[in-house]
Amino acid sequence: MPPHPDIRFCRRCGTATQQQVPPLEDRVRAMCPSCGYIDYVNPINVVGTVPVWGPAGEGPAGADVRWAGEHVLLCRRAIEPRQGLWTLPAGFLEYGEAIAEGAVRETHEEAGARIELGPLYTVLDVAHVGQVHLFFLARLVDLQLRPGPETTENRLFALEDIPWGELAFRTVARTLHHYVDDCAAGAFPVHTAAVTPADGRG
Amino acid sequence: MPPHPDIRFCRRCGTATQQQVPPLEDRVRAMCPSCGYIDYVNPINVVGTVPVWGPAGEGPAGADVRWAGEHVLLCRRAIEPRQGLWTLPAGFLEYGEAIAEGAVRETHEEAGARIELGPLYTVLDVAHVGQVHLFFLARLVDLQLRPGPETTENRLFALEDIPWGELAFRTVARTLHHYVDDCAAGAFPVHTAAVTPADGRG
Repeated sequence: MPPHPDIRFCRRCGTATQQQVPPLEDRVRAMCPSCGYIDYVNPINVVGTVPVWGPAGEGPAGADVRWAGEHVLLCRRAIEPRQGLWTLPAGFLEYGEAIAEGAVRETHEEAGARIELGPLYTVLDVAHVGQVHLFFLARLVDLQLRPGPETTENRLFALEDIPWGELAFRTVARTLHHYVDDCAAGAFPVHTAAVTPADGRG
Repeated sequence: MPPHPDIRFCRRCGTATQQQVPPLEDRVRAMCPSCGYIDYVNPINVVGTVPVWGPAGEGPAGADVRWAGEHVLLCRRAIEPRQGLWTLPAGFLEYGEAIAEGAVRETHEEAGARIELGPLYTVLDVAHVGQVHLFFLARLVDLQLRPGPETTENRLFALEDIPWGELAFRTVARTLHHYVDDCAAGAFPVHTAAVTPADGRG
């Protein structure tokens, strides 16, 4: 069983590929016996935001509360996977796009939301599905929302009312848990972690 | 001119692809008129480390100097692009790999180096070539180095002797500039930036 069973033909010349270890490499790739093209498959980045609304919390003395908020915007998924569950706005980074640009675009596509983008906040490996998820802090500029085609509903949740049991993805849950903790602590450092199948759904 | 002129055939069934905007999408993709496969092309992650050696600097009072070092390990490139120039150990993240794993693997492959991996340090967009570069702080465990096939020479440079004019990539220069500054400041926060063609080579 090759690592990427979908790759059976050369993208460049259409010849049937062979699963081989290329010279000087250490793992099997889909290689073209005719033109020599090697079809590398690499993890894909998913980029999104934690869009918040409401006055920044007070936090401990001296805390950076610029990105703290009372409510967070979630999107109810109109499509599989995880149809009907809640997610932060996020999607695949496009070729030619910077991660911050992609995060702003996805937030607009899924929620119609205009945001002030904050700093990078979580970088989460989802290695078993070949993804890296990157979320930025963000503040909603206004409440003019409009669900996009992948969303049935946008809703602002108070932090204490986040629907933990109905979140679509583990990286969303992980990011929101950090966010709730960091609002209480008054600091928003970058968090990194690896999410595995043992962590439950998504 | 399609965005990815190399994609001319369907990877799944070998039919000639067509450059079209898929339903509900907003940009041209290579689509298969026979089986419906859409060949998405996404940015690729490059992962690497800043491997340092030598006693941690003293830094200002209360500074976190755990990742400060006197010397940094650079690798002289044996291959194009930028053959003969110096780089931090780094390379493409593999499918199924976490970013930290990939950074450790590349450091071992290019320098034979064993490291204690530190926190994520820089996340740099190189959007015009469809890449995101992620570097981790790291400390060399010993000086048992062995150049890999992509490296002609490994050398430890004192921070004041970094060969700024002979660095292979802008993301390497950017990461090393942050590192030198942060050693002086005694704190190593995550840095994000977008690197553009206007920033010079690499």
